[in-house]
Amino acid sequence: MESRRIETLADGIFAIAMTLLVLELHVPSLSPVTSPGELALALLHAWPKFVSYAGGFVILGILWIGHHNHFHYIRRADRAFLWINIGYLMCVGFLPFCTALLGSFIWNRTAVVVYGGALILTGAALYAEWIYAARHGLLADGVTPEIVRAAGNRILVGVGAYAFAVVVAFVSPPASLALYVLIPFMYFRPGGIDRHLTGAHKV
Amino acid sequence: MESRRIETLADGIFAIAMTLLVLELHVPSLSPVTSPGELALALLHAWPKFVSYAGGFVILGILWIGHHNHFHYIRRADRAFLWINIGYLMCVGFLPFCTALLGSFIWNRTAVVVYGGALILTGAALYAEWIYAARHGLLADGVTPEIVRAAGNRILVGVGAYAFAVVVAFVSPPASLALYVLIPFMYFRPGGIDRHLTGAHKV
Amino acid sequence: MESRRIETLADGIFAIAMTLLVLELHVPSLSPVTSPGELALALLHAWPKFVSYAGGFVILGILWIGHHNHFHYIRRADRAFLWINIGYLMCVGFLPFCTALLGSFIWNRTAVVVYGGALILTGAALYAEWIYAARHGLLADGVTPEIVRAAGNRILVGVGAYAFAVVVAFVSPPASLALYVLIPFMYFRPGGIDRHLTGAHKV
Amino acid sequence: MESRRIETLADGIFAIAMTLLVLELHVPSLSPVTSPGELALALLHAWPKFVSYAGGFVILGILWIGHHNHFHYIRRADRAFLWINIGYLMCVGFLPFCTALLGSFIWNRTAVVVYGGALILTGAALYAEWIYAARHGLLADGVTPEIVRAAGNRILVGVGAYAFAVVVAFVSPPASLALYVLIPFMYFRPGGIDRHLTGAHKV
Repeated sequence: MESRRIETLADGIFAIAMTLLVLELHVPSLSPVTSPGELALALLHAWPKFVSYAGGFVILGILWIGHHNHFHYIRRADRAFLWINIGYLMCVGFLPFCTALLGSFIWNRTAVVVYGGALILTGAALYAEWIYAARHGLLADGVTPEIVRAAGNRILVGVGAYAFAVVVAFVSPPASLALYVLIPFMYFRPGGIDRHLTGAHKV
Repeated sequence: MESRRIETLADGIFAIAMTLLVLELHVPSLSPVTSPGELALALLHAWPKFVSYAGGFVILGILWIGHHNHFHYIRRADRAFLWINIGYLMCVGFLPFCTALLGSFIWNRTAVVVYGGALILTGAALYAEWIYAARHGLLADGVTPEIVRAAGNRILVGVGAYAFAVVVAFVSPPASLALYVLIPFMYFRPGGIDRHLTGAHKV
Repeated sequence: MESRRIETLADGIFAIAMTLLVLELHVPSLSPVTSPGELALALLHAWPKFVSYAGGFVILGILWIGHHNHFHYIRRADRAFLWINIGYLMCVGFLPFCTALLGSFIWNRTAVVVYGGALILTGAALYAEWIYAARHGLLADGVTPEIVRAAGNRILVGVGAYAFAVVVAFVSPPASLALYVLIPFMYFRPGGIDRHLTGAHKV
Repeated sequence: MESRRIETLADGIFAIAMTLLVLELHVPSLSPVTSPGELALALLHAWPKFVSYAGGFVILGILWIGHHNHFHYIRRADRAFLWINIGYLMCVGFLPFCTALLGSFIWNRTAVVVYGGALILTGAALYAEWIYAARHGLLADGVTPEIVRAAGNRILVGVGAYAFAVVVAFVSPPASLALYVLIPFMYFRPGGIDRHLTGAHKV
């Protein structure tokens, strides 16, 4: 009951952040009587926008699934927890901007670093929320220290991977971009937390 | 309980995508002291925007009702299912852009093809989600193979119709547009899945 | 349970439409070092935008409360009902555009007529939904024909008032605007449906 | 049950208002081949936008937590309550505009005063809602006059602080901005209402 409203707010922010990404896809400003070929070309030239839309959606999907899994275990909330959660959602709401920046300046080191930095911050906030909940008795009774550690590590691995990608960006932004494309795939396979979840009640 | 949050996220994305359509309706940039006649004319000239708003809303409505009906039967979710669902929502979030593109270049083959292509992709994702759920035991117990097939076919017929309309677009974009207007009417009449639903519990 | 998701979608669309109104409030494009007096003047000049924001919010509030009251009685949904509901939400999603149009061309007859016309259409859709639900057995058992009629009439009175205001607009747009300001006040006092609601369970 | 839909609408509006803030963060309009240094500089120059994004998010977070706490105690709603609530949400929906105004004209007294004024209005609406609920028997049974007073005072202190900051703005806008930064910190520590909540049911 109590954590339900936090979930609703969070789901709202995720849904909106996911959909705001599409606002960065601008209809090409060409004459209304432009030829099909020219319009197709203009759309193809805008490929970084489409790639960053898809990428941003996948990242937000991963974060939402992670948040979703946490709330499976969270039973209570206190004021500090609410604030960490709002900090987390502030990071989530910031991601469409970083995605748009990358969509406009895809080869630019600054855009690449800002994007990775925002993801590191978001992951750190998710980690802080989880650890805070574990340390302050906000989790359900059956949650063992192993589950806490497994779920925490899953986040830290992602944060570490993005930190590495940000360092790489100072040498080569395209190599960093390649890492950004690869990192999400880590999260497609089930993790330790899933195995625990599978026992009693699926995701 | 578990599938509830997926529904909330999905409803949020549908609600936002439906409302984003209206952002494509721009107030005409005329002088504040323009005459009523000129303003009326400017609005009439923007008819493709209004038509594509209504069309986009209807399409999203059909997809939402379809998604709604599926979740009536879906009881569990696993990680792969969540990912297919996110892929589906990515397509849904992309539709306002395609609708806007069509609103700006209504007679342009490229815009017509992109619009149809996005709908085919969305339908394919909805079909994949349904079949995945059926094959991995995520459905409620009483769902017979006939219901699975009937609901699946209902999607495939739409995908096929849009694929046909896309092919027609290469011959005549206006003919393709006419098909886009007609196809949704197929979904106004109750389908096989409704008859099943009517038995025990209405939509 | 079943009507819950329709409510969620509707609440999402209302929330978004209400908030989209604020997007029409543009920060004045003045130099960043403009004087406080000039900025204040620019904001004062934009008063029609602020008035139409408040007005649009109030209208959407009235419609949301009406929809809210209906769903208090609605127990079931069928496909036709879902479609009428989507038509209704399409009207709701269209209101921010009409509000923006009025905010930009407040003395212009065309804007005044479009605004009133959209409200008539929205009210008609809400009425259709209510009557359809009553005639097709979708309401809760205790709903008497008197409640159905009282709630229906409450909508029709508003539709009639807006229709009158639209006619007035052809004589004098400012007089029509004055009516638009006054009509919502009718809905502040409790209506027949409230008296019924008050008996057992408050709104 | 009845207050659930009000919460959903409110959560939707909060989620959207929070996310709309990010729309004010514009990707710098530089050439796509601009240097990383120039892009970084352009982002740094836009610091007031980022600060006002974070500030707006924190303010909305405080208001959401306050609203959240109120609804913990509210059991019923009547038509007048719904209207006060819609007035409150109208203020909430208006905050992204005030935040954007401040982000564009951060040293301008008019922007500073408008921002503070909007927060005073929002706090006043929240206070009115709470007091109305208390006086009209809409609260849960166990709510003592002390809880009502403690929760009310917590709002009034904030309203008073913002009123003071607005007065200060007429002497020195930067001093007023400093107050705007400090005031939210008051709300990070648990208040009287939390102590009551902690007894039986957290948050």
